[in-house]
This record gives sequence, structure tokens and C-alpha cells, in this order.
Amino acid sequence: MDDFRIGKLVVVGVGLIGGSLAAALKREGVVDRVVGVGRSRNNIERALTLGVIDEACDDIGDAARDADIVVVSVPVRQTASVIGPLREALGNGAVLTDAGSTKRDFVTLARSYFGGETGNNVLENVVPGHPIAGAERTGVVSATADLFAGKRVVLTPMPETSDASADRIGAMWGACGADVIHMSAEHHDSVFSAVSHLPHVLSYALVEMIASRSNSEELFSHAASGFRDFTRIAGSSPEMWRDICATNRDQIVTDIEAFQQALVTMVNHLRAGNFDSVESIFAAAAQARQAWMEKQK
Amino acid sequence: MDDFRIGKLVVVGVGLIGGSLAAALKREGVVDRVVGVGRSRNNIERALTLGVIDEACDDIGDAARDADIVVVSVPVRQTASVIGPLREALGNGAVLTDAGSTKRDFVTLARSYFGGETGNNVLENVVPGHPIAGAERTGVVSATADLFAGKRVVLTPMPETSDASADRIGAMWGACGADVIHMSAEHHDSVFSAVSHLPHVLSYALVEMIASRSNSEELFSHAASGFRDFTRIAGSSPEMWRDICATNRDQIVTDIEAFQQALVTMVNHLRAGNFDSVESIFAAAAQARQAWMEKQK
Repeated sequence: MDDFRIGKLVVVGVGLIGGSLAAALKREGVVDRVVGVGRSRNNIERALTLGVIDEACDDIGDAARDADIVVVSVPVRQTASVIGPLREALGNGAVLTDAGSTKRDFVTLARSYFGGETGNNVLENVVPGHPIAGAERTGVVSATADLFAGKRVVLTPMPETSDASADRIGAMWGACGADVIHMSAEHHDSVFSAVSHLPHVLSYALVEMIASRSNSEELFSHAASGFRDFTRIAGSSPEMWRDICATNRDQIVTDIEAFQQALVTMVNHLRAGNFDSVESIFAAAAQARQAWMEKQK
Repeated sequence: MDDFRIGKLVVVGVGLIGGSLAAALKREGVVDRVVGVGRSRNNIERALTLGVIDEACDDIGDAARDADIVVVSVPVRQTASVIGPLREALGNGAVLTDAGSTKRDFVTLARSYFGGETGNNVLENVVPGHPIAGAERTGVVSATADLFAGKRVVLTPMPETSDASADRIGAMWGACGADVIHMSAEHHDSVFSAVSHLPHVLSYALVEMIASRSNSEELFSHAASGFRDFTRIAGSSPEMWRDICATNRDQIVTDIEAFQQALVTMVNHLRAGNFDSVESIFAAAAQARQAWMEKQK
């Protein structure tokens, strides 16, 4: 691990995640050169000024040709438009990873671009990934070398992925201070639907419901700190969360429906005056959350 | 307002709210003597030691007899067991207020104890109230004179309540730095069902749903800061929230059902692949929340 080095790192999408990754690897002194590719000229200029990247490049294929590692960190829906030109780099031995919040879609995309008939096995160099870190700030100006310290990064290597590639991406995130774990893309999407995607949908839906009421201004004026925290995630990027809903639709629908069932149970208890049952649900939740918080410490 | 003074204040239930109120009024030097009544001997001893109350009394009627203001700050379900003995005090001119999170039930209770045939009009001295302040810590040890500074207190005077009584309770909360507003008990319960009770039910329901799954330990291990904030209110007192659900059941059921409808809409959009509609809902929510946060500053 001490020997881990990256000669050339290409970051496609130098935003909060891509920028923070580059900044962390530079601070740790494990990367020789970082090339940034991005759709916003402004943002790329800023990344250069901040020293987060050493060089900017407009052409993904050119940038990646002799790269050691390519990190794609763009809104999920744009992934398809950027990974095509990476085939040559992968053939040259570059390892590709991404930072998308859903993983089955990236696997499908990687297979459709790099799998199959050509038989050059470049999929062994593809390591789907998902760093679990702040999503509310955006752009390279929000990037910080500390973003991943103590955070978790989930890698979802495909059966086609080589151990060496997975190890290399794991070492990269480890160098940023992250805790790296592996699971299948399917399992990833199921786990994060429950603990992340569903809460986001619920939070957005509640705020939109209140905002739609004729007395919404008055209602908001009475909202307090509980509401503020409950709805913090409803301040997340609508574009990003649209993409997550689109790419993990079946799991999210399944979880919304399970939640709807939980609400039916709650309403039935309330209507029947089973307040002991209501209190039991609340107590089970409070206790589970308390146990979880204890483990976080 | 500068002339506002309380000779004798009786606090029934010297917990976070009652204790903080007493502490604030003492710090502001507007109260001569605070008498505490509480079911927990331990807590009352601590309140004495902390100087939050000057005196403890076991008998509510005795404590209140010559009081200027009586504040009842006990779990909502216990209100019925403590307000009966206050009739004499109210007849003597004491003003009674409470700190419950639901208000129609307190109005009903006050009328059943103090209204009607006896005709001594003590209801003019009853001012239902709801300070909107932290509910997750409990006990007098959590009390602080700053708790209400800049916070809102909603008073829901009844038609029977005199202006003088409402003004007096308003002045008391004003002395603690709170922003006092008036509305009807019915309107209060409808507003807080939407912005407080419903979010609590949703947060409890989500945590309980995840805790009930066979892989709950794994799921919690992947929960991040968004989940932490969304579920903070699921750490609230199950007893207190059971009481709120019991006393505001019809409004809460109505709001849960409105939310279920919002989820049906969401599921329909997802199934139909109407991701633009999903994004519109998310964007409306993000924008409404942003506007609300701006106003908070």
C-alpha cells in the first residue's frame, strides 16, 4: 500500500467528488499528474487555478490514452456520453472507475460499451464505485482534500473485473482516507434504495406537498428545527436525484410501496385507537436509531 | 411590557420546557418566586439545586392557590390528572397556561374542568399555549435560560379567554425572548400536523421499517448523514409522540393520507418513466425549501 502511486490520473467531471479526490491524492503525494475533463469551461479554469488539476483537456479519448486511472464523476445520465471514448485507454491498461450513486446502470453501460465480441477483455479494467460523501454542494469550489476521510466508498466489481484493478481503485480511495468495501451492484442498489433513495423521495414529497398547499407560506413559517433536518435532503440536486430515480427505479418503487404499507399500518392503528401499537413502533424506531448512533461514535 | 412582573409562578412539570421557562424568567428578573411541582422527586431536587425553582410542593392545589401564573408542562396525557386542583387558583385570578404540542385537547379539557354551570368564568384565565422548542432532550438538567430566545410561542386563546390573561402569558414568553403569535386551537392543530406531526410519523415509520428488515444491521451500516438528519426526529420521546398522535389523531390521519396520495403520484410517474415530472416535484421542493431557509436567516 505504501508503494501505491498513480502516474497520470484523468478526472472526467471535476466537481465536488472528482475535485476532492484529486485534491486528496495530490495532498497525499501519490499522484504525479492530474488531467481534468469537464463540460464547464469556468469550472475547469477554476480547478486549474486552485491547483486541483494540473492540466485541462477537451478530448476524453486523448486525455485518457496514456492514463493509469480514469475517474468518471459526472451526473449519472451523462455517463453514457463520456465513457465511449475510453475503450482505447482501457485496452492500454488504464483502470476506469466512477462515482455514481447507482451501480447496476453503470455495469450495464460498461458492458454495452466495452463488453462482448471484441474480446479484448477491457472490462477487467472497469471497477464501478460509489463514494458515500456529501452531495449538496457542487462544483470544484466546494472540493476539499478531506471530503473522503473516514467516509465509506463502496466498490461493486463485476465478475469481469480483475482483482488487480479492484485493488488499485481500492488503494486510491484508501489513500484518501476512505473505508473501502465491496458488494455486488445489485446489492448496492437495494441497500441504498432503502437508506438513501427512499428517504430522499419522502423528503422531497413532503416539502412539495406542503409547498402546494394554499397556506404554504404560513405552514413554512411554523416549521422548526425538526422539519429543517427532516427536509435537508430535499435541498439536494433535482437533476442528480432524477437520475438516481431513473436508474434505480424498480428498487425505489419497491421501497416506496413497502413504506406505503407501513403508513397503512400506522393509519389503521390510529383509526382504531391502538395508541400502544403506535408507541411501540415509535419506541422500536427510537431505539434502533439510538443503537445506530452509538455505533457511529 | 417593562412593568411585567410575576409574583409567584407555579411550574407543574419542571422538565426541559418548564425548567427553561423558570430559568429565563429568573435571569430576566421578572419573577419573585418559582414553585415547582413534579412527579419525579429526583428531578425536583435537581431543579432546587440548580436554582431553577425556589421551592418544591407536592400538592398542586396548595402550590397554586395564591399563584399569579401557573404553567402546566407535563406530557399531554397527564394534563388531565394535574389541572383539576387548579380551579380554586383560577377563581383567585391566577392565569393558567400550558406547553402541550396539541391544543384542541387542552381546550376540551379546560372546558370540561372549568367551564359551564358553575358560572364563575374561570376560563377567562386559561390561555392554551405551545412553545416551539426542542423536544429531544428531557429533564431539568437540559433546561437553559436561552431555550426560547428567538423561538416562537403559539397561544391559542379560547373565546372565553380574556385579553388581559392572553396578554399576560404573551408578556411572560416575550420576557424569555420568544416571538408570540395567536391562532385558534383548531388552526394550530392543523398547521402543526403538517409541519411537525406528519414528519415525525414518517421519520419513525422509516426507521422502524428498516429496523424490521432481516438485513437491518447492514442497512444501518450504510446510512449516511442524509439519513441521520432525516431520522433525527425519530429519536424523539415515543411517549410524547404517542400522546400527540392520540390528541391530534384526525388531523394526522388526514395528512398521512394526503402524503400517501403524493406517494401514489410519485410511483405512477416512476412506473410510467415520467422522470421529467419526478424532477419537477424535486425541483419545486428544493426551491420551496431554499426560499424557506432564506427567510430563516
